[in-house]
Amino acid sequence: MAHSYDVAAIGNAIVDVIAPCEDAFLDAQGLTKGTMHLIDGARAHQLYEAMAAGLEASGGSAGNTVAGVASLGGTAAYIGKVAADQLGEVFTHDLRAQGVHFETPPLSEGREATARSLINVTPDGQRTMSTHLGVAGLLTKDDVDEAVIQDSALTYLEGYLFDPPPAREAFDRAADIARAAGRKVAITLSDVFVVERWRNDLLDFLAAKAHLVFANENELKALFETDDFEEAASAVRSLVPMAAVTRSEHGSVVFEGGKEWAVPAFPVEQVIDTTGAGDQYAAGFLFGLARGRTLDDCARLGALAAAEVIGHYGPRPLVSLRELAAATGLV
Amino acid sequence: MAHSYDVAAIGNAIVDVIAPCEDAFLDAQGLTKGTMHLIDGARAHQLYEAMAAGLEASGGSAGNTVAGVASLGGTAAYIGKVAADQLGEVFTHDLRAQGVHFETPPLSEGREATARSLINVTPDGQRTMSTHLGVAGLLTKDDVDEAVIQDSALTYLEGYLFDPPPAREAFDRAADIARAAGRKVAITLSDVFVVERWRNDLLDFLAAKAHLVFANENELKALFETDDFEEAASAVRSLVPMAAVTRSEHGSVVFEGGKEWAVPAFPVEQVIDTTGAGDQYAAGFLFGLARGRTLDDCARLGALAAAEVIGHYGPRPLVSLRELAAATGLV
Repeated sequence: MAHSYDVAAIGNAIVDVIAPCEDAFLDAQGLTKGTMHLIDGARAHQLYEAMAAGLEASGGSAGNTVAGVASLGGTAAYIGKVAADQLGEVFTHDLRAQGVHFETPPLSEGREATARSLINVTPDGQRTMSTHLGVAGLLTKDDVDEAVIQDSALTYLEGYLFDPPPAREAFDRAADIARAAGRKVAITLSDVFVVERWRNDLLDFLAAKAHLVFANENELKALFETDDFEEAASAVRSLVPMAAVTRSEHGSVVFEGGKEWAVPAFPVEQVIDTTGAGDQYAAGFLFGLARGRTLDDCARLGALAAAEVIGHYGPRPLVSLRELAAATGLV
Repeated sequence: MAHSYDVAAIGNAIVDVIAPCEDAFLDAQGLTKGTMHLIDGARAHQLYEAMAAGLEASGGSAGNTVAGVASLGGTAAYIGKVAADQLGEVFTHDLRAQGVHFETPPLSEGREATARSLINVTPDGQRTMSTHLGVAGLLTKDDVDEAVIQDSALTYLEGYLFDPPPAREAFDRAADIARAAGRKVAITLSDVFVVERWRNDLLDFLAAKAHLVFANENELKALFETDDFEEAASAVRSLVPMAAVTRSEHGSVVFEGGKEWAVPAFPVEQVIDTTGAGDQYAAGFLFGLARGRTLDDCARLGALAAAEVIGHYGPRPLVSLRELAAATGLV
């Protein structure tokens, strides 16, 4: 079936503020390494004061993913909420400059600003995020562009949006539109804390509406309340038609029906900042899937995209993923 | 003479928007590679629309320099104008997080925003800047904190501020305060276009008030309207007590009275983005000078700091320059 967009994604529209820190800083600030914490404005102000000097970059998990899809030469659309402010302008520019269709109207009233994620990166390259959602959490089902979803091979949903209730309705609407149009729905679990907060709701959503779930190993184990990977793998296989599970430097495993493919991680010279690694894995995988590649190749494209973004600060590719993929013979 | 700050700097308080581009993009946009163009709000909007997705980082030439001084373990103060907006917040945070004293009150009224420099980086790592000055150009002599200047071993002035007239008055006032307190005044020529626009004024200022001038080879030649480096060198020696001239990959030459020192550039693995290279050279040099190091060592510290910043996107050090300098035996 023909489509205008390989991927339409719905997510929290966020600008990242990325700064290096030591592990002791995370302890002092009460932050759990490698996770995402939701924080309010007062806490954001306080944490920012304590952070080192940094860099800013457009982020947001699903935003990073569609930027990656576009960098691979795919077509993508994005739905997310920014404010009519400077950071909203930056976020909007960066998606459109990649060729991503992004027309969700910004919120121009009210006191909330564009969402910011304060990302502290430890010397091992791990990122720990503290997100002040601002207007990103005000996304509603009315922001879901029906025509865009109908015209996208895959609709990709960011698990972080399970937190704000109106956004959850947007998920339901988008998934229903996609399924009615004969399209596929993918979702990422996003974060172990998200899984802990919304386990039952996520399980219901996966069973009812998802064709494909992305998760890292910890998120998958948390979802099924087990420490045993095989047990979690078996559970996810019976819940959704397809799952792609990332295992950091051990690569990823893809499940479809009774079959599975284990694909190694791409070699990385130096891990600088893992922000966006999972998002770029999803980008490569979704691009491959929309283009009818084998699941093995989908996972390889994901590994390639993730490797690029780990090598520098910032959650989106700084070079053309299409050229990288061509250089390795993947496209 | 004891001092609280090694360096007090006055400059355009700017947030950089950095994106990769091809050389053809510069041609299409009518931009001269390696220089700084002043642009108005409408042109900034138009150019930003045309640019690739990028990263944002606090910048401004003198702001980068004091950040470098602080990274080397020095003490520094900054005077510059931001607006009370999101980018102003980012700029302020990044200086204070480095330990730089920065108390110039932000402008909270009016329609102008914090200055933005749209920086297009070609594959050779060269940066071409298009700056919308916004409130940065509204700095006045009233913003010069007399006590801070009196208490700084060196006052460092950014040549870019020769453009807005009220800022020129701030330069004069700061230089006069510094000299009256028995301190030294340093200035950078900043850009060949700045030199072309203000040649006579710059020559007057250098002769009357500067102890030390920073320039790259092209700026120095432009100042003395010659293509001959030796001729320019001879002219600058008779104008100011001390000059530090950078020559890209050929290192730098320092002149003091009848003496000169040529110091090689530090090896750089891969040139990614030269934004801030001159600023970090000045940081290393000024830090060394304030700490009573030989001019040879000052130039080496400058070369070391410049090499760090060339290796990544963004105009300020991403690692501790103090540790780098210690590792090479320079401190």
